[in-house]
This record gives sequence, structure tokens and C-alpha cells, in this order.
Amino acid sequence: MTKTANSIKTPVIIINFKVYAEATGEKAVRLATIAKNVADKSGVCIAVACQPTDIAMVANTGVPTLAQHVDPIHPGNHTGHILGEAIREAGAIGSLVNHSERQQTLAAIEKSLEILKRLGMVSVVCTNNVKTSKAVATLEPDFIAIEPPELIGTGIPVSKAKPEIVKNGVEAVKTSNPDVKVLCGAGITTREDICAALRLGAEGVLIASAVTCSNNPKKVLEELVQGVKRA
Amino acid sequence: MTKTANSIKTPVIIINFKVYAEATGEKAVRLATIAKNVADKSGVCIAVACQPTDIAMVANTGVPTLAQHVDPIHPGNHTGHILGEAIREAGAIGSLVNHSERQQTLAAIEKSLEILKRLGMVSVVCTNNVKTSKAVATLEPDFIAIEPPELIGTGIPVSKAKPEIVKNGVEAVKTSNPDVKVLCGAGITTREDICAALRLGAEGVLIASAVTCSNNPKKVLEELVQGVKRA
Amino acid sequence: MTKTANSIKTPVIIINFKVYAEATGEKAVRLATIAKNVADKSGVCIAVACQPTDIAMVANTGVPTLAQHVDPIHPGNHTGHILGEAIREAGAIGSLVNHSERQQTLAAIEKSLEILKRLGMVSVVCTNNVKTSKAVATLEPDFIAIEPPELIGTGIPVSKAKPEIVKNGVEAVKTSNPDVKVLCGAGITTREDICAALRLGAEGVLIASAVTCSNNPKKVLEELVQGVKRA
Amino acid sequence: MTKTANSIKTPVIIINFKVYAEATGEKAVRLATIAKNVADKSGVCIAVACQPTDIAMVANTGVPTLAQHVDPIHPGNHTGHILGEAIREAGAIGSLVNHSERQQTLAAIEKSLEILKRLGMVSVVCTNNVKTSKAVATLEPDFIAIEPPELIGTGIPVSKAKPEIVKNGVEAVKTSNPDVKVLCGAGITTREDICAALRLGAEGVLIASAVTCSNNPKKVLEELVQGVKRA
Repeated sequence: MTKTANSIKTPVIIINFKVYAEATGEKAVRLATIAKNVADKSGVCIAVACQPTDIAMVANTGVPTLAQHVDPIHPGNHTGHILGEAIREAGAIGSLVNHSERQQTLAAIEKSLEILKRLGMVSVVCTNNVKTSKAVATLEPDFIAIEPPELIGTGIPVSKAKPEIVKNGVEAVKTSNPDVKVLCGAGITTREDICAALRLGAEGVLIASAVTCSNNPKKVLEELVQGVKRA
Repeated sequence: MTKTANSIKTPVIIINFKVYAEATGEKAVRLATIAKNVADKSGVCIAVACQPTDIAMVANTGVPTLAQHVDPIHPGNHTGHILGEAIREAGAIGSLVNHSERQQTLAAIEKSLEILKRLGMVSVVCTNNVKTSKAVATLEPDFIAIEPPELIGTGIPVSKAKPEIVKNGVEAVKTSNPDVKVLCGAGITTREDICAALRLGAEGVLIASAVTCSNNPKKVLEELVQGVKRA
Repeated sequence: MTKTANSIKTPVIIINFKVYAEATGEKAVRLATIAKNVADKSGVCIAVACQPTDIAMVANTGVPTLAQHVDPIHPGNHTGHILGEAIREAGAIGSLVNHSERQQTLAAIEKSLEILKRLGMVSVVCTNNVKTSKAVATLEPDFIAIEPPELIGTGIPVSKAKPEIVKNGVEAVKTSNPDVKVLCGAGITTREDICAALRLGAEGVLIASAVTCSNNPKKVLEELVQGVKRA
Repeated sequence: MTKTANSIKTPVIIINFKVYAEATGEKAVRLATIAKNVADKSGVCIAVACQPTDIAMVANTGVPTLAQHVDPIHPGNHTGHILGEAIREAGAIGSLVNHSERQQTLAAIEKSLEILKRLGMVSVVCTNNVKTSKAVATLEPDFIAIEPPELIGTGIPVSKAKPEIVKNGVEAVKTSNPDVKVLCGAGITTREDICAALRLGAEGVLIASAVTCSNNPKKVLEELVQGVKRA
């Protein structure tokens, strides 16, 4: 594991800000501050993955901050790409990789992981099922976040709809590489969902709209940390 | 033309920071400051296109700041994408579109332009030859930057190697839409190059490594503004 | 216009076989034969766009045969790509370009058109709205097929739901380049739909599931040619 | 292993026809016939991967025929894509997957393999290094072909320039899944190269220009089968 991976303590709640209006610019900072406060009060680790434009300000709140994507490139002539060195200098401690909304080739995933590792940054690779999770585990990321794409944004928790994906995913990953931590995503909205996910072996969750699009993100997060504590 | 397009006065020198190490983070700010100072002293407009992580800090120097890419999306679930609203809130006044290192589908170019226009932002669409420049002109961008990809990074100025591309590009664009301003890129490094480009009808240049990778970017820029004045 | 473009007489019905099971392999040949027979009987030109694996057999029926996609490449090291020379040698007289299910960058569209023209093949560029149609018209394809993506596969005919797209599309294209012929697609299923499309100025239609997935494609085509004659 | 995988007997020479002019259409058939004859005479298995337009004719020569790419799709609305069912009906017994010139996302590789397996077809997944080979091995393809992209087309054999990639690749794959067979590619041109590759543990090679662009492909293949026999 990379050194900075230690800055993400499990069980962890990672909030993916995506490009929601409610999680852009000043609003991203406000949401990050709420996350920081709930984390500090509860002792449960909460990290956020924000847009590159917002990394500096969001990281400044003290919340562990991830980028949502990093390109498999070195400094040079790559206009419009996301450079590992740039997100790190801005304050990110790591990055999501291969999110289902920003998928990468296998070679790109491998190279992105190599870059993040070299930069001492945390990697959270998103996968869509048990098989691809097992494949990614061989590439030694810090985290794998299993998100069946058909459940993303539905409010149907993977831990309830397809518990076997979480259970078998954790088992496949750990068999391949016990150092890799498994998160689950897609549809987690309540304390019961997150509690169920952790009991299935997940070491955290990757959530998005349940928090970012909520009228009361603070309350949702307080709910979720209760679920974490109860697990 | 969008209102903010007025904030870019022609003839203009746009410096594409790409993801060069010399133009990332603190170094991006330093380079932007040099550009600002040369612009202020000479009266020649100089803008920069930086990485999304650096937009806020770079814009803060007062230099007109563009993003290098914007995705054709609205706020929502698009992890790892670049949102128009986000770059604007960070301080960008516009964006490059369809750079040869980050090409887009035709539908994406059209939608990106619509988004930038709606947000009151400047659009600089990159094209590779006369035909695609003429096609883009119908989409009513603020600027078209013609860069034959085979010359990018070669130090061979398009204004010298293929002057007919600049000349015919300007003519094709203006015939189609006289409001669109034409820049030329690829290989511009000296005052003679930029002077030649402007005399061929270009209203500015898009340059990158000649400035960003120079040991003395201030001197290079001072050279280039001399070329602008002489044209 | 290319020479072979003459082999597609307008008004034309182009059937996109997509990768429907009902239009693959032997079934593609059977469907092509039906199209050929209805065309011969009615005197209305019917062409088909089939999968690359089926081009030779489908072209052998005598129906004017298009590929569904061609890559902007020359012979060489491009594993897994579709070569213009290969589809031509197999018997195709042209190709769809930039279908909404297989979109291309602007530079790729331009280069694909150049390749098809050089090979003496017909080009049918798909576009999604009036603006992109106007842009493509400057690239001098033989045909532009306007298909608002939101209507594809819905059974809602563009000629009824958004007649202004057809009308304005035809006008924009003809103003830019009177030699380019305009087709419309998306949702055309009845003789009324196709009749309306032609009266709005379209010179043919691009259809898919209405024919390929019909229990009785012969009857559907006979309906459609009636609509063509009535227009 | 799939049933048809048995139709490829190891050690095997797979010739990637790419989209070389010398391996398109009638010339593809001629080259396939040469491969068939050398295989029959020598008893060494030789398979070819040709363009989709040529599969039917090439398979008709009796040579084991692969597609160069298959899309991770089911029959339906996917214009311009390559359907597993279509290449099978045309006569292919399998397909290359994820060639470095046609890379796929991880999810697409996994789904393509599932489709090929369901259709009883052979899968040959191309990878670029040891790590990605190990990752792919968990997805249970029939073959993995390791090709360091920097050596493709150079004539510098991977078995000589980077023997450790072949050796470690074989070891990593076999440790993960002993049923997966490993091929090596990139730069194999002589009997010594292929002999070295097999001695390093490879069960065959994936070659391209050395055969397809040769003035005398028969002689090159006869050379290579000698290398296979000597290994």
C-alpha cells in the first residue's frame, strides 16, 4: 500500500461529487466542510472525490480529497488531460480510476496505477462485477470499488439487490491480493445499506447522489456513519 | 460573438500550457504572471490555456485564462469529466475545444460550443486543415485555431512550411462566417513566424512548447510581441 | 458527386441492418433479396447498409450495398479497423459515416470522406441536428442523413415530431452545397411518414428496425415505396 | 477452454493480417492458402486473423480463421460494430481481443470474453506487459498474446530484446491460471526468434508484417515452422 493510503482509514465513506451542480465550486467546498465536520465528530473516515477545478479549495478544508480521474500520462504534450503531478500539487491524495462513467483501457488502468503509486497517491479503481474486480486486484491498487452499473443512481443498494456481488467480490479480491481493500458502491443511501455492505465484507462505500443531491447532506452523512458504527 | 470574447483582444497570443511540468501548479502561476507582465507592458493581448487544477490560481494573476477542454455535458452524473460551469466558476473565460490531442466527435464539438455560448464563454476550436476549419466556421465559434498536426511540436512554423493552409483557412472561414477569428498554431517560435502568420490573415497564434519549455519564456514572449507589432 | 453515387437513385430508401440478429448472415441475404425484389418491382431505389462480414454475400444479391462504418485509415497496421479498400473489394459501393451509434471525430469524418471519394464510393454522413448537418455539408459528402438521436428506435417519425429539423436541415445543407442530398432518419415506419419526409425536402430515408425487425419486411417495404410514389 | 479452442493446436503461429493491402480481399485468400499449405505439409498449426469482410472467403480455405476484433455487444442497435454471432456465422472460430491497435476497456474485454465463450469461440487477448497479462489471465481467455507495443513492427524480437517479458509473462499467467496458453508477439521474424520464444515458455507466436509484407510469405512461414520444430 502507498504511504498516503494510510490517510484513508477504513471503514471509509467516499463521496463522489461527480459534476453535480450541488457539488461544484463554492458548493463543493461547503459539502466538503460538512463531510469534514461529520467525520471529525464521528471518528468515521470520510473522503471526497471532486472535480479537478475544485481540488485545491476542497483539499484546503482538510477533508481527504481524491481526483475523479487521472490520465495515464507523464508531463508533456497532452492538452486537455489530467496529470497525476497536477492533481497531487493541487492537494489530492489520490484518485478514482476507471469509474464506469470514465472507463479506461486495461493498459491505461495499469499505467495510471503505476503513476499513482510512484507519486505516493491512493488509488481507488472502480469495477463493474466480480470478474473484473479479481482482474484489477492483480494490479495492486489500494482500493477496488465494485459498482454494478445497472444500479448506479437507482437508489437500489447493491448490498441488498445483489449481495453476492459484494460477498464474492470481496472474496475474489482478497484471495488474489489480501492487501487490496474493497468498497462497494451503487445505491447506498441508508444506514441499513451501509451496515449490510460492511457486514458482507466491504471496507467502505463509494456514494454519490444520495449525499450530493440531498437537501440535507449533513443528515444523510450522520445516518451513514451510524450505519458504519453499527456494522 | 460572446460578451467575454471581447476580453480577448486581437491580435492575440494564446499560450497552451498543455500538461508540461514547466506549466503545472506553482510553475503555471509563474508563467501566467510573466505572460501578464509582457502583455501589460506591450499592450499585446496574451491569454493562457492551463490545466483545470490550475485555473483558479492562474486566473487570479489577471491573465485571461482558458481551459484546455470542456466536455459536452450538463451538471449531473459524469464522473471525471470537465464541466463548463466548473471552469467558469474557477475563473476561466473560455476553453479550447477539440485540440488535436483531445479530439471530439462533431456532435460533441457542436454541443460544447452551445454550452460555452450559453455560459458567456469564449470558444477556441482547434482544427487540422482548411476543410475542417470551414466546417467548424458554420458552428459559430469565437476563434478557430488551425494547427496541422504534423507540424505540432516540430518548431517548423506553419506560416512558413504551409502558408497556404493559413491563407486558405482564413479565407474559407471568413467566407463562411466573417465574425469568426482565425488563429494559427504549430511551430510558431520567432517574431518572423508570428509576423508572417498575421500577414497571412491570422488574428493571432496558439503556441505551446516554444514558450512553456523555454529557459527564458519572458524573452520568447517579448520577441513574439515584437512580431505582432511589426505585422 | 462520386461516380458510384449515381448507382443510388433518389428518392432512396436505405435500410440500416445494424447488428440485428434478423439482419445477420443468411438472414441479411434474405432481407437484401426482399429489398432487391421490392425495388425492382416498384422502381424505387432501395439500398442496404450491412455488417462487414456480410457485404460480399449481400452485394451479390444485386442490391446497392453500403458498409455501416469505415475507418479513416490507409492500408497498414490497423488491426481491427474497417478499411475502405476492403469494403470496396467485398462489393460495397459506399458507406455510412459517423452514425450516432459509431460517432467519429471531425478530423476522422473529413478523412473518411476523402478516402471514400478517392475510392469512388458513396458517402452517407449521419448527423444529429441542423447545425451539424450544415457543418458536414461543407465537407461535400454525397448524402447527409439527419437523425435526431432522441427519436432513433422510438417509432416516432422525425417528419412528424420535428418537421422543422428536416425542413431546416434541407435548407441549411442546400444553401451550403446544393449537390448534397439530404435523407432523414429516425422513426420512419409508415407510408405517411416517408411521404411527409419527402414533401419536407428530404430525398430519401434511412430506416432500420421498422424493416429489419418486422415480421413481414416485404410488406413494410411495399408500404414505404407507396409513400415514396405518393410524395 | 472452449471446444473450438481445440481447433488451434499448440504450438501455433497466428498471422495477423491487419489491414495490409497485401492481406486484403483476394490477396488475403492467397495468403491464407499459403498458410494452409505450409501448415498441412509441416504439421505445425497456423491460424490467421483477417478483416471481417474477408472472413468467409478466408475460412473457406480451411485455415483456422480469427476475427481481429469483436465488440462487447449482443445483436441489436449497434451500427458499425462487430458482432460475435456475425463473425461466427461467417466462419471465424475465434477472435483477437484488445489488440494494441484496437484497445478496449476492462469491462469490454471481460464482456467480449463472455460472449466468445458462450458462442464456443476461441479468444486471444493481446496484452502489453506482464502485469496486464496476469490481470487478463483471471478472466480465463484461451490465449494471451503478450506484445510490448514499443517493439511492434520493429523487427526486434521480444524473445531477444526483452526475454524476461516472455518468461515472466508465462510464469505470471500460468500461476494465475494454468489453462491459459501464452503467445508472444512483436518482432518475431526468423526461426531463431520463434525457437527462442517457445523455449521461454510461449506456446506460439502472433506475427504480422514479417509474413504479410514479405515478398515470399511461403518461405518465411517455412522458416518459422522449422523454428517451431527445433524448439
